[in-house]
Amino acid sequence: MEIAQVILALAIIFILAKVSSRIFTKLGVPGLIGEIILGVLIVSITIGDYKILDWISTQFDPASNSSATVHEILEVFSELGVIFLLFTVGLETKVTDLTSVGKAALLVAIMGVVVPFIVGYLFITVTDGDMYSSMFMGAAMVATSVGITARVIKDMKLMDAKESRIIIGAAVIDDILGMIVLAIVSGMAKTGEVDIVNVLTISITAVAFVLIVLFIAGKILPKIYDSIQQKRADRLLQDPNYIPPGYNMFVVAIATCLVFAYIADVVGLAMIIGAFLAGMLFAEHAWEWKLEEKFESISAFFVSFFFVYVGMNVDIQVFLDDPALLGTAAILIVLACITKFVGCGLGAKIAEPHMETSSASIIGVGMMPRGEVGIIVALLGTTILVDGVAVLTPELYGIIVMMCIATTIIAPPILSILFRKKYTSPYEIRDSDRL
Amino acid sequence: MEIAQVILALAIIFILAKVSSRIFTKLGVPGLIGEIILGVLIVSITIGDYKILDWISTQFDPASNSSATVHEILEVFSELGVIFLLFTVGLETKVTDLTSVGKAALLVAIMGVVVPFIVGYLFITVTDGDMYSSMFMGAAMVATSVGITARVIKDMKLMDAKESRIIIGAAVIDDILGMIVLAIVSGMAKTGEVDIVNVLTISITAVAFVLIVLFIAGKILPKIYDSIQQKRADRLLQDPNYIPPGYNMFVVAIATCLVFAYIADVVGLAMIIGAFLAGMLFAEHAWEWKLEEKFESISAFFVSFFFVYVGMNVDIQVFLDDPALLGTAAILIVLACITKFVGCGLGAKIAEPHMETSSASIIGVGMMPRGEVGIIVALLGTTILVDGVAVLTPELYGIIVMMCIATTIIAPPILSILFRKKYTSPYEIRDSDRL
Repeated sequence: MEIAQVILALAIIFILAKVSSRIFTKLGVPGLIGEIILGVLIVSITIGDYKILDWISTQFDPASNSSATVHEILEVFSELGVIFLLFTVGLETKVTDLTSVGKAALLVAIMGVVVPFIVGYLFITVTDGDMYSSMFMGAAMVATSVGITARVIKDMKLMDAKESRIIIGAAVIDDILGMIVLAIVSGMAKTGEVDIVNVLTISITAVAFVLIVLFIAGKILPKIYDSIQQKRADRLLQDPNYIPPGYNMFVVAIATCLVFAYIADVVGLAMIIGAFLAGMLFAEHAWEWKLEEKFESISAFFVSFFFVYVGMNVDIQVFLDDPALLGTAAILIVLACITKFVGCGLGAKIAEPHMETSSASIIGVGMMPRGEVGIIVALLGTTILVDGVAVLTPELYGIIVMMCIATTIIAPPILSILFRKKYTSPYEIRDSDRL
Repeated sequence: MEIAQVILALAIIFILAKVSSRIFTKLGVPGLIGEIILGVLIVSITIGDYKILDWISTQFDPASNSSATVHEILEVFSELGVIFLLFTVGLETKVTDLTSVGKAALLVAIMGVVVPFIVGYLFITVTDGDMYSSMFMGAAMVATSVGITARVIKDMKLMDAKESRIIIGAAVIDDILGMIVLAIVSGMAKTGEVDIVNVLTISITAVAFVLIVLFIAGKILPKIYDSIQQKRADRLLQDPNYIPPGYNMFVVAIATCLVFAYIADVVGLAMIIGAFLAGMLFAEHAWEWKLEEKFESISAFFVSFFFVYVGMNVDIQVFLDDPALLGTAAILIVLACITKFVGCGLGAKIAEPHMETSSASIIGVGMMPRGEVGIIVALLGTTILVDGVAVLTPELYGIIVMMCIATTIIAPPILSILFRKKYTSPYEIRDSDRL
């Protein structure tokens, strides 16, 4: 391994990723989609004059084992990227927010998990028949990427609208439910057994892990925190010169994040679930300890590698070999939109029967984008082997990534139109605010 | 490669490094020394009940090729750590500060480079005879780690003392001179030729690289920056709604850092020199773009791996096999202290003949710590091969690391005593401020 070559390769991928991200953002499309497409191009374009891409692809193409080490380094960077990404999602998920959101958000979230999961499951069961693939497709359909929707709402300055609050609340619960679904699904696939005892064991482990962390975050940590603060205040009263010992909470957070990721793996769950739960432990004081901005810095470096890696794992050859797959992808995209729209809209209507249909529609559309969360599920599905075969084939992985990209692109403009129809916004919406 | 194992190994090393660092800091010793010693222990203690260290050492011990990949990942992390570290040193090195420091700082820096280099060179030439080893020893003796001294001065609240200003100014110049020396030395060793043409080529390349960056940083960038600011101001006058495009300067900085590191390698210099120079390009506006705090976050993650890696490369077996080596190390430590003390003290006296000896002594002691900079030079020396043999043997590497650790531990208390003798400080120095 020539270390300078590794640094150069990392530098090139980093720069190209950031440039792609910026170009797509300028076009009104979330930047991560630019990074994924870059990944697809990097491993696909190996002919002609594209010397740089060609060079990187020979370094990093998973198919060519010529430089396995460099590929593995990229894999570690990608894994750390997604671990830190999920940790920051956890950082934004406060237990107190969960207990304060209303019945509407809860029902929207539950229906928004149940309907897409069942449809996703059946879709694969009907067309293909493998149980684990079906479950992973269900899990990928469940995930909501609230980041995209939150961005639209924020840009339109409609954070205080009722629909906005329900969407954000539901998305938080959705994250947790989605993690539980993923934990169960990946746990079952990892152990490769489907007897009722195993399903129960994994479900209980997953739910217990989440509940224990919720309990620690919601009940135990606040008490410890308050008691430390109280002791320090008492001591300061006695001795005005007392300086409380400082802890670098950023370092503590990184350590907790990595250890929880490993624990999750040990108990048979996905590492990202551990990272997400670790983030929740710090959510209440994330602002005080500046954790969000610090993790933003470290994510700025790592996360791009994850999305490029996601793209690198898309084999466009499967679409060239079997163009009918594009039809399947189109059907999946439609199902993905409809299931969230119907599931979440219905949830809202059930919770508040007098709610206007226009409001329920906004909520349904707002919950549509799968973004990075669905992709994370899909990538995980390609790494879990059952009887030596990956749970998700390159074909299924490819169409799930397409579905995630499509829902992420489709939802924002529709949401924006629906919001505009409902609210003749008192705020002047500037061009620069438009997605 | 089992990715969860890699994450766990990284987590364990990260946590142990931070704990070691904290323990040593509490004891009044710079934290990085704790991290280096941890690295030494990790690869040395492989017997008894130390199961965790034992486990990590089998994963990471460079000698055992059982898990070469994991070791290479650690190497990449370590390299990125030192690249980001040198970038932040560059960030603190403003060209305008250089032009404003006086004759005293300049002479202190030059004498503090010349005297230790010559003595270090002669020391190896006399005892061993290899030219490249001698040059690397000289280069390692040259480096001043101003961070340690700055910490003492800051803790004693004596930033405004005349000696303090000279030390800080000289340390900045010393950094640049040290980089030029390292560039020439490593360039010569890499090409393995010592004819006058080659020496000249490398010297000119190194000096030109530094001068070009200094020129860009000092003359061209400020003009570009001002012209962009001017254009934006003009445009804002015409259109009050104009929003200037925002660039994520952190991303630009990371990209520049990595690319410069690679360019340095290509032109035959050390990658860290490129990183250092890249940092200087951003120094003038680092505060405005919050680059220092952002790089602090990313360094908090990476840099510990570097110091642990430094320790892991120390083979304590060489000291057990040849205890006389400890005597050699002791002599080197004494020489390292004396040469900086005499060189820098003399430089100060020459520049300002009326300066009190007590002031010259403070300056001499303040310039003593080699800290991480000397170690970086040493580690580089073990990776450059001449005729298939590393320029620095494990023995020489070991004693240089010991010298760097020793000077870093010795200097602060002496400096603190000398400062106290000279200044009956008007400031109350609290216990918590003492090193």
